[in-house]
Amino acid sequence: MMQLHQVGRVESPLRNRDDAPRQGDEGAPTAWVVFDESVRDALGDVAVGDELILITWFDRADRDVQTVHPRNDLTRPPTGVFSTRSPDRPNPVGLHRVSVIARDGLRVQVSHLEALDGTPVVDVKPVLGDVDDR
Amino acid sequence: MMQLHQVGRVESPLRNRDDAPRQGDEGAPTAWVVFDESVRDALGDVAVGDELILITWFDRADRDVQTVHPRNDLTRPPTGVFSTRSPDRPNPVGLHRVSVIARDGLRVQVSHLEALDGTPVVDVKPVLGDVDDR
Repeated sequence: MMQLHQVGRVESPLRNRDDAPRQGDEGAPTAWVVFDESVRDALGDVAVGDELILITWFDRADRDVQTVHPRNDLTRPPTGVFSTRSPDRPNPVGLHRVSVIARDGLRVQVSHLEALDGTPVVDVKPVLGDVDDR
Repeated sequence: MMQLHQVGRVESPLRNRDDAPRQGDEGAPTAWVVFDESVRDALGDVAVGDELILITWFDRADRDVQTVHPRNDLTRPPTGVFSTRSPDRPNPVGLHRVSVIARDGLRVQVSHLEALDGTPVVDVKPVLGDVDDR
């Protein structure tokens, strides 16, 4: 059983998929992540200026999709979802590289988060320059 | 219900956690990922030279751990797991940036994979230079 537990939740002005930009740097808004009390210790010292990878669960995705037209451009041939960042995929896990711009206890404000309001957060990791930037 | 489905499995010479390097670029070995027939279309055109992020499930992790000593160095103060890449965390999801070095149908060989033999793979995404490298 590979069962994810929600550890937080996105608060964003993005209400539906038509609002969402295609990638995090194409105009995605500032958002808050509200963490659960149960992971206060795991959140630890996360602070303003930290570069993080948020892992979310795209709860409104279609898990039966295996191919998509890149960037929803119907003139382009369909490609396997493992070559895209489409939320529609067998396991709709989202990766979001963000910067922390404010923190108030269990509430963490981040830049450029392409995730709809209410999206569950399941993990947070630090960006590692030597692994993620090469 | 946020239930992950296995889409593939790691074949690696790393048999247990004592063998594993701390990060993917510290001597992690070449490994194979054997994908399930059910995601053949999602795997699509993945090819030699592609830079991918594999998402795994650390099936031997301890989900009750919230703080760790960085790099297992007991002289350093414990820190929240969301500031580390420890496999021990509430949702033991692994991120692995790899290069494809061979492909034979559903078998994909990748460089520098820090994941134990038998680890379930749950998703694959392309590296996006503008999102992942900034």
